[in-house]
Amino acid sequence: MPGPLHQPPPDRDRFGRLTEAHLEFFRSVVGADYVLTDADSRRHYGHDWTEDYSFPPEVVVKPATTEAVAAILRRCAADRLPVTPAGGRTGLSGGMLPVYGGVLLSLERMNRILELDTRNLQIVVQPGVVTQHIHEAAEAVGLSYPPDPSSKGSCLIGGNVAENAGGAHAVKYGITNAYVLALEAVLPSGEVIRTGARVLKNSTGYNLTQLLTGSEGTLAVITEITLRLVPKPRHVQTLLAPFADAQAACDCVSALFRAGLQPSTLEFMERDALVFGQRYLGIDRYSVAGVEAHLLLEFDGNDAGAVLADCETALGVLEAHGAHEVLLAQSAEQQAELWRIRRCLGEAVKGTTIYKEEDTVVPRAELANLLRFVKQVGAEVGFQSVCYGHAGDGNLHVNILRGELSDTVWHDELPKAIARIFEYVVSLGGTLSGEHGIGWVQRPYMPIRFSATELALLRGIKQVFDPQGILNPGKIFP
Amino acid sequence: MPGPLHQPPPDRDRFGRLTEAHLEFFRSVVGADYVLTDADSRRHYGHDWTEDYSFPPEVVVKPATTEAVAAILRRCAADRLPVTPAGGRTGLSGGMLPVYGGVLLSLERMNRILELDTRNLQIVVQPGVVTQHIHEAAEAVGLSYPPDPSSKGSCLIGGNVAENAGGAHAVKYGITNAYVLALEAVLPSGEVIRTGARVLKNSTGYNLTQLLTGSEGTLAVITEITLRLVPKPRHVQTLLAPFADAQAACDCVSALFRAGLQPSTLEFMERDALVFGQRYLGIDRYSVAGVEAHLLLEFDGNDAGAVLADCETALGVLEAHGAHEVLLAQSAEQQAELWRIRRCLGEAVKGTTIYKEEDTVVPRAELANLLRFVKQVGAEVGFQSVCYGHAGDGNLHVNILRGELSDTVWHDELPKAIARIFEYVVSLGGTLSGEHGIGWVQRPYMPIRFSATELALLRGIKQVFDPQGILNPGKIFP
Repeated sequence: MPGPLHQPPPDRDRFGRLTEAHLEFFRSVVGADYVLTDADSRRHYGHDWTEDYSFPPEVVVKPATTEAVAAILRRCAADRLPVTPAGGRTGLSGGMLPVYGGVLLSLERMNRILELDTRNLQIVVQPGVVTQHIHEAAEAVGLSYPPDPSSKGSCLIGGNVAENAGGAHAVKYGITNAYVLALEAVLPSGEVIRTGARVLKNSTGYNLTQLLTGSEGTLAVITEITLRLVPKPRHVQTLLAPFADAQAACDCVSALFRAGLQPSTLEFMERDALVFGQRYLGIDRYSVAGVEAHLLLEFDGNDAGAVLADCETALGVLEAHGAHEVLLAQSAEQQAELWRIRRCLGEAVKGTTIYKEEDTVVPRAELANLLRFVKQVGAEVGFQSVCYGHAGDGNLHVNILRGELSDTVWHDELPKAIARIFEYVVSLGGTLSGEHGIGWVQRPYMPIRFSATELALLRGIKQVFDPQGILNPGKIFP
Repeated sequence: MPGPLHQPPPDRDRFGRLTEAHLEFFRSVVGADYVLTDADSRRHYGHDWTEDYSFPPEVVVKPATTEAVAAILRRCAADRLPVTPAGGRTGLSGGMLPVYGGVLLSLERMNRILELDTRNLQIVVQPGVVTQHIHEAAEAVGLSYPPDPSSKGSCLIGGNVAENAGGAHAVKYGITNAYVLALEAVLPSGEVIRTGARVLKNSTGYNLTQLLTGSEGTLAVITEITLRLVPKPRHVQTLLAPFADAQAACDCVSALFRAGLQPSTLEFMERDALVFGQRYLGIDRYSVAGVEAHLLLEFDGNDAGAVLADCETALGVLEAHGAHEVLLAQSAEQQAELWRIRRCLGEAVKGTTIYKEEDTVVPRAELANLLRFVKQVGAEVGFQSVCYGHAGDGNLHVNILRGELSDTVWHDELPKAIARIFEYVVSLGGTLSGEHGIGWVQRPYMPIRFSATELALLRGIKQVFDPQGILNPGKIFP
């Protein structure tokens, strides 16, 4: 739920002002129906899923072709208008918030699957395709596109690429950037570039594909994406393992890998996460009595016997770490229900209170230390947190609940506490974001990870692509 | 075998000249034993495995610490001396050739494994570690570092990262860049940066790790590398499948994946490749009578039954595509022998004649078309080629033999023929290099893949990291 309107940063005047002439030009390029300036539309496109931020753009423009994107960018560059590209607006770092107003460039109409190449296990899509539609298209021909953000039913693939989105299967299959083979993108100058190739390996010049992936719409507007697919594994088994001790659950995570296992998912849910999730879905099947945390894990493969053997090895490791009454999902329905609970956690927490989410990521064996530190800081500052996430990746989503916290604590004390958490994360070998990006809300913490020299390199790269700084201004850089 | 000395490019004078004062400074930094200016050393460090190129540097300097690298770079930047970093000098694109002379910065003394982190399945190494030593260290604790260039016994990991080296296991496990989690590197200014983190997913600012990986030593000197490891699979099966028709072998490659299989290697060897390889090793066990090509493939996993089931599925696909008398390796010794043959092919061809190798890569289903085109161009121009490579990746190494070709054909006609091959490769969705890099020898072909706008972006990035252009000058850019 977006909150009160937020004000643009004080240096708004470094950009040009939108005029009626711009609107007429945009209408001539994309058609009058796709240039929106009414208050409702501006408000609607002024927020994503990040906390309660709301920054209405001055105009929403919806191009349907690469040529239209190029024409719009050329004009905006000529007149120094800020342009913020947007996908499904489900991001959790505020990457698409048009904080300087200006033009919101929605890619939602570029929503076609251009080619499903079953000979080469590749799919070519426009940025506005819903990620789940890619899953379905692939699965219909026995293939799989593994990255599966919890928002997969509403996020758009362009946003996934821009933020380098993750998901539960990353632990075996990698996050979005492991699947992006080639991109078409439009520079702020309106020039169209093609990066990568339709190949599985590439050592041809600097890796522009990986540079654009995760660049949060600050370097170029992505207009076409070639993704690698993999054969869909024939068998999947899901286990839910309750632990009386959350620390033991964390310690069990790296033990599973040390036993030679490669789970296809390995999720951690604090007791409260499961409570919130079940309440949100109106079920109470999974008891949390005497339980501090659950691990939710999956094994997949083409050989049913091998998958079951993995489950049995895992059972031994889980029980050795104190898991009791491990549930082996007995049906596809039960598997689906467990995943519905896991996937709704973000919404479930959000429905309870305003919250801040930190996308911490550490070497996986440090998970127990990270959890302990978060709780310790929470006890000192007085905040409640609900933690869950992709434990196999060492990626813990720390949800800090507003609850009854005063304005002073929320606005002044909490950022300091979050900085302490990130300092600890970095000291463990971790970093600020595993899969949500830096966007608008994590910007202030960038100097915790990056030296002045490193930040200067990032700024230098930004300057090469976007010398006027019109593309998604206000993001990533502190 | 390095050939006659080659002359530096005509614009050598844009760089400063090495003086005795520089040598004294280098000696003060690394010790007199590690600053070499004698003719033998200069000649020795003036070539890699690329054709017959030989560009002796003016001095070879061997730092042992990051601080020494920084001090050397700072001094070279101050006086605009060209600096070329070098690893094991086994590259096939001339990435380490010091074409402008100047300083050859050998990282060979930075050869320590700094940490083998079995809790997190990571290894931290200096750039001078021999890749095979990483394999051995990982395997000793039940883990695996999958990238395995054919030169793994002599190449250094720093060079692998710089060139984004591949290998036979890339088809299942990915090439070097899929394993690099974090880097320490020194900019030409002498500033030390750290990219990435010790984590499996990362969406924190632009991906400098992937930008440096494959940048061929033109942006920064890599001084520390954190690599991801994976559990070593317990079972491996190797198959050698002979085909009377090379086109049928190529077509079989994508069919194997369409059958839902994920081989851990899938190599193609033309008839002549196997002949050269066996002759080189002094064996004649594998008949090529009536055979145009072989596929060499492997399946791996933790479950012996599942691996065998994959082999049986594969057998069906192979036979349906005309493979006859497929050999299933009966012992670890036989497996090792088959791989010895495959790995020696480069040396075997090189021992026969001067040759040029093109590292073409296409969508894997286009392999048959690529092979046909190469042979057709060869017939027109009059060259003999021996083709082999990582078929599962669509990565075909095209070895063009000098044989009895005249100087005119070799120096004037052949580059045009290679350009035609690359134009065809790009038209198929492929690109110039799958795993060898662009380096010195593929530079002229860059405009076949990259537009002027795209090349300007690459140059802009180079400028951000290395404003004076002192680092490995003459590489990548046409």
